[in-house]
Amino acid sequence: MTPTHMTPEEFRRHGHAVVDWIADYWATLGQRPVTSADPPGTVAARLPAGPPELGEAFERILADLDTVLTPGLTHWQHPRFFGYFPANTSGPSVLGDLVGAGLGVQGMLWATGPACTEVETVMLDWLAELLDLPARFRSTGTGGGVIQDSASSATLVAVLAAVHRASRGRWRGEGLDRRYRVYTSSQGHSSIEKAARIAGLGDTGIRTVGVDPDTLAMDPAALRAALEADLAAGVVPAAVVATIGTTSTTAVDPLPAIGALCREYGVWLHVDAAYAGAAAVCPELRWSHAGLEHADSYCFDPHKWLLTGFDCDAFWVADRGELVEALTVMPEFLRNAATESGAVIDYRDWQVPLGRRFRALKLWFVLRWYGVEGLRAHIRSGVALAARFADRVRADNRFEVVAPHPFSLVCFRLRADDRTNAELLRRVNAGGRAFLTHTRVRDRFTLRLAVGSPYTREEDLAETWRLITGAVPDEPGGRA
Amino acid sequence: MTPTHMTPEEFRRHGHAVVDWIADYWATLGQRPVTSADPPGTVAARLPAGPPELGEAFERILADLDTVLTPGLTHWQHPRFFGYFPANTSGPSVLGDLVGAGLGVQGMLWATGPACTEVETVMLDWLAELLDLPARFRSTGTGGGVIQDSASSATLVAVLAAVHRASRGRWRGEGLDRRYRVYTSSQGHSSIEKAARIAGLGDTGIRTVGVDPDTLAMDPAALRAALEADLAAGVVPAAVVATIGTTSTTAVDPLPAIGALCREYGVWLHVDAAYAGAAAVCPELRWSHAGLEHADSYCFDPHKWLLTGFDCDAFWVADRGELVEALTVMPEFLRNAATESGAVIDYRDWQVPLGRRFRALKLWFVLRWYGVEGLRAHIRSGVALAARFADRVRADNRFEVVAPHPFSLVCFRLRADDRTNAELLRRVNAGGRAFLTHTRVRDRFTLRLAVGSPYTREEDLAETWRLITGAVPDEPGGRA
Ligand SMILES: Cc1ncc(COP(=O)(O)O)c(C=O)c1O
Ligand SMILES: Cc1ncc(COP(=O)(O)O)c(C=O)c1O
Repeated sequence: MTPTHMTPEEFRRHGHAVVDWIADYWATLGQRPVTSADPPGTVAARLPAGPPELGEAFERILADLDTVLTPGLTHWQHPRFFGYFPANTSGPSVLGDLVGAGLGVQGMLWATGPACTEVETVMLDWLAELLDLPARFRSTGTGGGVIQDSASSATLVAVLAAVHRASRGRWRGEGLDRRYRVYTSSQGHSSIEKAARIAGLGDTGIRTVGVDPDTLAMDPAALRAALEADLAAGVVPAAVVATIGTTSTTAVDPLPAIGALCREYGVWLHVDAAYAGAAAVCPELRWSHAGLEHADSYCFDPHKWLLTGFDCDAFWVADRGELVEALTVMPEFLRNAATESGAVIDYRDWQVPLGRRFRALKLWFVLRWYGVEGLRAHIRSGVALAARFADRVRADNRFEVVAPHPFSLVCFRLRADDRTNAELLRRVNAGGRAFLTHTRVRDRFTLRLAVGSPYTREEDLAETWRLITGAVPDEPGGRA
Repeated sequence: MTPTHMTPEEFRRHGHAVVDWIADYWATLGQRPVTSADPPGTVAARLPAGPPELGEAFERILADLDTVLTPGLTHWQHPRFFGYFPANTSGPSVLGDLVGAGLGVQGMLWATGPACTEVETVMLDWLAELLDLPARFRSTGTGGGVIQDSASSATLVAVLAAVHRASRGRWRGEGLDRRYRVYTSSQGHSSIEKAARIAGLGDTGIRTVGVDPDTLAMDPAALRAALEADLAAGVVPAAVVATIGTTSTTAVDPLPAIGALCREYGVWLHVDAAYAGAAAVCPELRWSHAGLEHADSYCFDPHKWLLTGFDCDAFWVADRGELVEALTVMPEFLRNAATESGAVIDYRDWQVPLGRRFRALKLWFVLRWYGVEGLRAHIRSGVALAARFADRVRADNRFEVVAPHPFSLVCFRLRADDRTNAELLRRVNAGGRAFLTHTRVRDRFTLRLAVGSPYTREEDLAETWRLITGAVPDEPGGRA
């Protein structure tokens, strides 16, 4: 039996229909509820128990997007999605990704996709220029950049390289031979704990460093004390993970002081700027990256605030040789002349997985379509919208803004107890007109509003503020 | 300054152009050289040193695909790409991925994308039915499936869960507290070594088990001897990774005997069927999966031989509780009512990264558009094309087929020394009309031809055989 595949002409026809579907989805997004109120299992119940025996018409599959799928989605691209850190895509990103999917190149080695590898190296150099990163991260020196799926994976890879270095290379052959520790502030992201766990350091391998009570940024004196105590106890400090833009409140750890300590103690400095790294495209926000020249590695997520669809984390190291030495394996079936020449980058040695997609295409499309000025305008718009929202909060004395908001996240709360604040959030989200999430700041329940969508306008924030003030419970903890 | 974003209407117009570009690319793929002859740096040299200040017209970006990009590609979707294991996509896969990119949902939690999570759970159940996997892997019991980016990551996650179990839960808190070992055959994939290294076991944490000299499948007696020796030496056996379809020759490890040993010694059994798992859609090839009911975890790559674009590895565990316990972390900002109810799956706890794309869409599109019979036809066509190619090789007594070819890979060589075989491969690939790779089988240089592309026809194999026979060097190692 000769198999029937979708022909290029069928693809052309169905592809136009899918593009139209997405254009319509985007155009009508603001009219949808941001989240779904359906209970768990609703979408699954709409699907048959098994795959069909015979293939179905493409039109039927497409029709199910509206009936089965979209009613059960959280719409991350919605203009009033203000939760977590938004992860926004854009037309150019989707189209770059589409080209990548169509090419279907697997760029594990330079030889398996020379253009895939070289466009990626150049795009990471472009990004380094766009953010004005230290020269040591450029591929033209000893460093270089690579796309990881996420900041979590970037931090894991940094921790592995750090342990490799701290063990003077024994880690790779013998495994963990001593107790190693990774330092981050109490505001560091959970992915750091997870990276340490995956690397075999355990949860006790994470040392949580205290923060300045006002700024919530890492306290360098506390870091020094922790390093000293661990050294005295025979534990090996392997890496410090500093954060530019913490998840809870976008606090910025003081890199100059932290970097000096890392140098003094010979510890790998990894900088996690997952969300706020994008801010450095604007010269007026580059203060946040001061001291980055001390870092051994750095990452940020274009998939968060730089209009590039998930997954796209940009990760740089100052010394690519160290990273490759930690992660390389070379079976016979991957040997090839280009690798042996030493003249090429094989990105499989820069990451956990072997295979890789052509993700640099979406960056290429985004950087070219927007240009430097277009990206700056996007960041500035997010910062300005957040600042105006914070002004509204401050102007209402039932509320307080609980942390500085240098980027596009505003942390605020009712001057009331935690239960009342949690109830306020529940009510705002229950309406489906806007979506916010929460955190705890100085151990108090706090609402977070983060701006990121290219579709968000001043009116969206005005409406959201009306929703919030209209949902304030009558009395603390009350259900009014 | 108000930022300018691509409007839905602009996206519609440019999207149609990109779809057309891909349709034309696919339609003309067979006329292109499979690989590029350009030296390293050629593509990079065609790119400007930095991003443009002002955004460029979309038409300009699209035009550069033909001038900058495609001349520097290895065309993985080409009908005469026979290297590695092919990683083939299809129209339905590309369109499912496009919908996912347009929705831009980040499904780290059920709450952040209920449909994203539920479609994934159901698709993994559908796949389990399609492959007739043991019931324990279904989400309706204690198990369940998840999409990982790659088999490498699946194996890493399996190793972590195995170490967690072997340590009786101490690993998570305290880190690696003893010497753990992972077992695989000498034909196991390099990703197993890499997983052990990342987990902190080191390269010595991998124990290489001998194989049957004829079948190249793991020798259970050698596995038992290795387990005994390690236990006697105080090392803790954590996991055995058995392979269905090894990378070099598609050997199938004897799961019934290996599974019995794993049970006897209390060791986690992970089964890596990265390439050959797809064969189990055909009842007549399910012998390869006999004994799978012993496995604690199993993975295969729809992105290799099941017409789903990279990245899409399907990974199942028999006990999802163990996996989640090993990998979960719960910061305040991710707390939500659905998670606390215990009624939902949060896939971030099943993988290394936090964030995740809506990859189940491409599986949904592929499984529905092809249907079970369509996918079977695809696998059968690959197996038949490979069998006919092996017949050609066998009919020419200058050549020999060096291993069984139950699936779509044929391993063969000239009856000549390694240098002559390497020279033959170099000549075949240099012409750009076809692309094969090599391995070493019983320590001899061996050519590998793997069929996977939906566009490959009998004529493509006939032409490739003509190329091969026409490129045979005159004398051993000669340059004739
Ligand atoms: C500071 C920080 N680091 C890391 C992450 C993890 O991001 P990813 O999903 O890319 O792993 C986040 C996510 O919000 C973050 O805010
Ligand atoms: C048997 C086997 N396992 C694992 C892999 C790794 O695949 P991935 O790129 O999905 O990690 C391969 C790749 O060819 C393989 O053949």
